[in-house]
Amino acid sequence: MTIALDAMGGDHGASILVNGAVAAARELGTEIILVGRSGILSSELKRAGGTGLPITIHDASQVVTMEEAPAEALRKKKDSSIRVAFDLVKNGRADAAVSAGNSGATLAAAMFILGRIKAVRPAIAAMLPTLKGTSLIIDAGANVDCKPHHLLQFGIMGSLYVREVNRNPRPTVGLLSIGEEGSKGNQQVRKAFDLLASSDLNFVGNVEGRDVFRGEVDVVVCDGFVGNICLKLSEGLAEAILTMLKGELEGSLLASVGYGLARNAFQRFRKRMDYSEIGGAPLLGIKGVAIICHGSSSPKAVTNAIAVAHNLSALDLAGKLETSIKRRRDFLRVI
Amino acid sequence: MTIALDAMGGDHGASILVNGAVAAARELGTEIILVGRSGILSSELKRAGGTGLPITIHDASQVVTMEEAPAEALRKKKDSSIRVAFDLVKNGRADAAVSAGNSGATLAAAMFILGRIKAVRPAIAAMLPTLKGTSLIIDAGANVDCKPHHLLQFGIMGSLYVREVNRNPRPTVGLLSIGEEGSKGNQQVRKAFDLLASSDLNFVGNVEGRDVFRGEVDVVVCDGFVGNICLKLSEGLAEAILTMLKGELEGSLLASVGYGLARNAFQRFRKRMDYSEIGGAPLLGIKGVAIICHGSSSPKAVTNAIAVAHNLSALDLAGKLETSIKRRRDFLRVI
Repeated sequence: MTIALDAMGGDHGASILVNGAVAAARELGTEIILVGRSGILSSELKRAGGTGLPITIHDASQVVTMEEAPAEALRKKKDSSIRVAFDLVKNGRADAAVSAGNSGATLAAAMFILGRIKAVRPAIAAMLPTLKGTSLIIDAGANVDCKPHHLLQFGIMGSLYVREVNRNPRPTVGLLSIGEEGSKGNQQVRKAFDLLASSDLNFVGNVEGRDVFRGEVDVVVCDGFVGNICLKLSEGLAEAILTMLKGELEGSLLASVGYGLARNAFQRFRKRMDYSEIGGAPLLGIKGVAIICHGSSSPKAVTNAIAVAHNLSALDLAGKLETSIKRRRDFLRVI
Repeated sequence: MTIALDAMGGDHGASILVNGAVAAARELGTEIILVGRSGILSSELKRAGGTGLPITIHDASQVVTMEEAPAEALRKKKDSSIRVAFDLVKNGRADAAVSAGNSGATLAAAMFILGRIKAVRPAIAAMLPTLKGTSLIIDAGANVDCKPHHLLQFGIMGSLYVREVNRNPRPTVGLLSIGEEGSKGNQQVRKAFDLLASSDLNFVGNVEGRDVFRGEVDVVVCDGFVGNICLKLSEGLAEAILTMLKGELEGSLLASVGYGLARNAFQRFRKRMDYSEIGGAPLLGIKGVAIICHGSSSPKAVTNAIAVAHNLSALDLAGKLETSIKRRRDFLRVI
């Protein structure tokens, strides 16, 4: 497997990304193409001790900044590291692309360069830690205005993902709403409930916000606006709890011991929470593998994202998704 | 002030509610009318030591269960405790109604018996604990399908609420979305951004999920579908963190001490989190005061809810809201 890494993206510069790539090449044996300014990347690679590993550099002279408007940036910067990374996948020189850069631009490049699977709206699948293990939330932010049949598509893609990646033969699928009954929720969700219920998925009905972290279902389906708010709310709440807990524990004689323990526990928890730490989030529904990482990814997160890209390529997840969608074409067309 | 309490609602029966009412009458001197089956309530009142306090009983022979369809239940059960409690407010015998019963039925009774303020969509205002104190999230679940101008109305009502209740002269208002720029978000939110920006509110722009618990703004505006999911997700995540933390701490020599400290801190935190504990959530935008409590409210939560009802009645919040909406009538009509 060969992974094209946009080595210029992210909040913290190329060295973080190169460090992550070196670890991935060393630990997993994955072949990696670092895409970006070759002068910078070759010295970073040397610094990171990457000589002798299966890592090559592919020059791209431009960088899309985190603030740029995605579509315009891609159109204007034809030699940007994001675009070139996806071109390498398109041309068959790499199996998957990974970027921690401008996520809108990464989404756009994935959709327009690799192409969408027919009859499906691509969506971001984020793995969340729960009391029972992990659950997949889909869509985590690719689509802000969804129709009910898009939510059905997300359910199909999420279910296949969990089946293949977690080796779970029949994942349970829940629809995020504000009550258990199918009559609860907004118009979009009430219609999606009926579609999911008439599908061949293992649909167990609505789940409420409080069910998500209890791990009540394997796949949580929602639109990208709601999904993205949920992810970021969780991130903020976990932070706030840590800070409040510190406040509550201070003043106690045992504060240093109790807080130290709690802090370590929280740091482990936050690592489990942060979807970039568990390997970045794939965009499902495109003809290929694209992994979107948090802008502030650590080297470890980059390594994990490369591992996910490697795994999804080896599983031919995109091909299986396309087959799965095709098989349901008549059902998807009817609705 | 006289508060009508639906003394039959909630998951745990009348005794919890009567205990809460007795504490409120004793501590706050609030006059309370317990509404429900008088036989049960008079023995509960005696048991709870309520004799001699300003508490009366008003008979209502029927009870709306938690599972019943709200509109139908209200139509059929004309002598239900929820309905009769609101009738008492309508007839001027009470200043406010409080219910921990079927929340859909409570909402419906509030809207149809007390009536809506003209030109406004009533919304639930829930106070959340944050790193900086508290923030109000509005709508927390009354409206699942909102137009952009409803979000503007929520901003107006939330802002007035925080100004009056928290004595904050110019509350900051943020719109919950998935990016800071006004161009980010779904269609509903992008249009609401423009409306809020052209209003006379202290609108500071979009806030993201992670900003909510950081307390970045005083008022967080969102539709009721998103708001309800956020509230319940937070509740579930706080629970999950406590459980995971326990797991992380176990096995340590200091587990019992560290966990004990952390657990107490969490319990305090959860009390701050649970909007029923901080007094139930008012429905704003109706001609009167209605407080909706969690079905599993504790006596303390009921006492707090009565205190909120007392406070909002004393402030004439509903009257001030109506004036505030009227003053903006031309602005609200244009959009």
